[in-house]
Amino acid sequence: MAPHLQRSALLSLATLAGLLCAAPLAAAQTQAQKPPRTGADVLAQAPAEHWCDVAPDNLLVMTLPQGRVLIELAERFAPQHVANIRALARNHYWDGLSVLRVQDNYVAQWGDPNDEDATKARPKAGARAKLPAEFSLPLAGLPLTPLRDVDGWAPVAGHVEGFQVAANPQSGRAWLAHCYGVVGAGRGDTVDSSTGAELYAMLTPARGLDLNITVVGRVLQGMHWLAALPRGTGAMGFYASPEQHTTIQHIRLSSSLPEAERPRLQVLRSDSSSWQEWLQTRRQRGGWFVHSPGYVDLCSASAPVREAPPTAQP
Amino acid sequence: MAPHLQRSALLSLATLAGLLCAAPLAAAQTQAQKPPRTGADVLAQAPAEHWCDVAPDNLLVMTLPQGRVLIELAERFAPQHVANIRALARNHYWDGLSVLRVQDNYVAQWGDPNDEDATKARPKAGARAKLPAEFSLPLAGLPLTPLRDVDGWAPVAGHVEGFQVAANPQSGRAWLAHCYGVVGAGRGDTVDSSTGAELYAMLTPARGLDLNITVVGRVLQGMHWLAALPRGTGAMGFYASPEQHTTIQHIRLSSSLPEAERPRLQVLRSDSSSWQEWLQTRRQRGGWFVHSPGYVDLCSASAPVREAPPTAQP
Repeated sequence: MAPHLQRSALLSLATLAGLLCAAPLAAAQTQAQKPPRTGADVLAQAPAEHWCDVAPDNLLVMTLPQGRVLIELAERFAPQHVANIRALARNHYWDGLSVLRVQDNYVAQWGDPNDEDATKARPKAGARAKLPAEFSLPLAGLPLTPLRDVDGWAPVAGHVEGFQVAANPQSGRAWLAHCYGVVGAGRGDTVDSSTGAELYAMLTPARGLDLNITVVGRVLQGMHWLAALPRGTGAMGFYASPEQHTTIQHIRLSSSLPEAERPRLQVLRSDSSSWQEWLQTRRQRGGWFVHSPGYVDLCSASAPVREAPPTAQP
Repeated sequence: MAPHLQRSALLSLATLAGLLCAAPLAAAQTQAQKPPRTGADVLAQAPAEHWCDVAPDNLLVMTLPQGRVLIELAERFAPQHVANIRALARNHYWDGLSVLRVQDNYVAQWGDPNDEDATKARPKAGARAKLPAEFSLPLAGLPLTPLRDVDGWAPVAGHVEGFQVAANPQSGRAWLAHCYGVVGAGRGDTVDSSTGAELYAMLTPARGLDLNITVVGRVLQGMHWLAALPRGTGAMGFYASPEQHTTIQHIRLSSSLPEAERPRLQVLRSDSSSWQEWLQTRRQRGGWFVHSPGYVDLCSASAPVREAPPTAQP
């Protein structure tokens, strides 16, 4: 179905119990694909090795009064910000801090309401105070599965380990795209003013932000808790008064939680044939649909996520 | 700035008090455009005749407990559905009915919870029980202001009287695009099963719905009230129990309201030079931004809306 994307490495049977996302995938087996399957069929029938486990050290568990928001950190794209975020989570930096801003059709943002007041700001224990901008990285060597569909925002679009990525072969750079649920590090006027302590999640695709700010990950589950928060009525969607803030109960790395409490999520591998077939079900619709666009855009192509099935648990 | 879009008709001074969106606009005056203005500058400085009044008969005022949602009806694109919607509003059909479904990153939908139970369904007084699908209309003769930016979903994208439109010159058809805040008429499995009684608003762009359902308008103001509703936990985001529904206090046409209570909204004209200049501020960013995409996509190019200034009121 997508022969240019098949890989030559062989997969051992032992990997059926789950693979981390960075491990290479074996060549897909050719499957008879008639009659066409629905997207749900493709996911339900995907072989276990087409899913990969999200590493507990890359999974941020944000607990709001409403529920949990699970964020996969994009270490490859923003290693220094991710290192800070891990340190802040380990030191319980966000516990009791707040969602400060919800701007409709744009972002939800959280952090320390007093961050700009040196006398009241919470110390960022374990985190570096100054980081470089991590807006893009070299395209060369990136395990990118390109989308064949045109992207108006960049010459190349595709996926790397489940993350939505745009790239420009001419500049040789690649970057994470601002699609729904993507999480970035708020910054001030200078490009190196983000530390990872103030984070935002996209309520909508806003690709105009690409290459302007450091993206650190994406929400895998629970994005609706942020998306359904009341919009702030102040400038840029900041809440007009602190009483309107939503308090963050805590943010932890999954790896810091007791084994039994860790969320066990899997992402459909971007380098699997199931991924290509799932994309094709977005381009060619069946069932209720009477027209198919023959196209899918990068932000509509969000890598499917599931709870790890019991058989994949240790 | 966009000479191919200028129109030759002359505008009389009398039109400074406001123009309906369907009236043709005069040729834009050439303006000196250095230094570059921000988007906010462009809107603040746009001449009065670059804005048009939304006709009271095209403005649906939906009152929720949280606040008002103002929807402009796209009569040109779905005349039969819009006629039904006007009749239903005049007959207070929606008063006391409900928001039934909020599916995260997709749609909010409202109507009669008992619509499928003939013994309990509310009668749709004044509305035709059967309408044809109004998915598209002829491109020929449509006052389309094309976007120069590529659209992956359709060969042509642009705006008609503030609405986001896609088109295919080969088929000769044009249609409203499913961008944020776009409102459509829910249907069942058959394409002619919508009446306009059950409506949905898009919480995100979902262009895959284009040409599959009748679009009837777009939210001009108050979309955040729908976007911040709790997500339904049933299949497809329907609420699991009626207690979770949001009650619609009433939906009225603005033209049915006393003059003093009518919202007075204006939309930036798609055929004005201010529109072209505003689009350009999206492609070439200044201020906080350090990178400009040189591009804007159809769904990011939502025609600006404002309250009519006092001078434009009668």
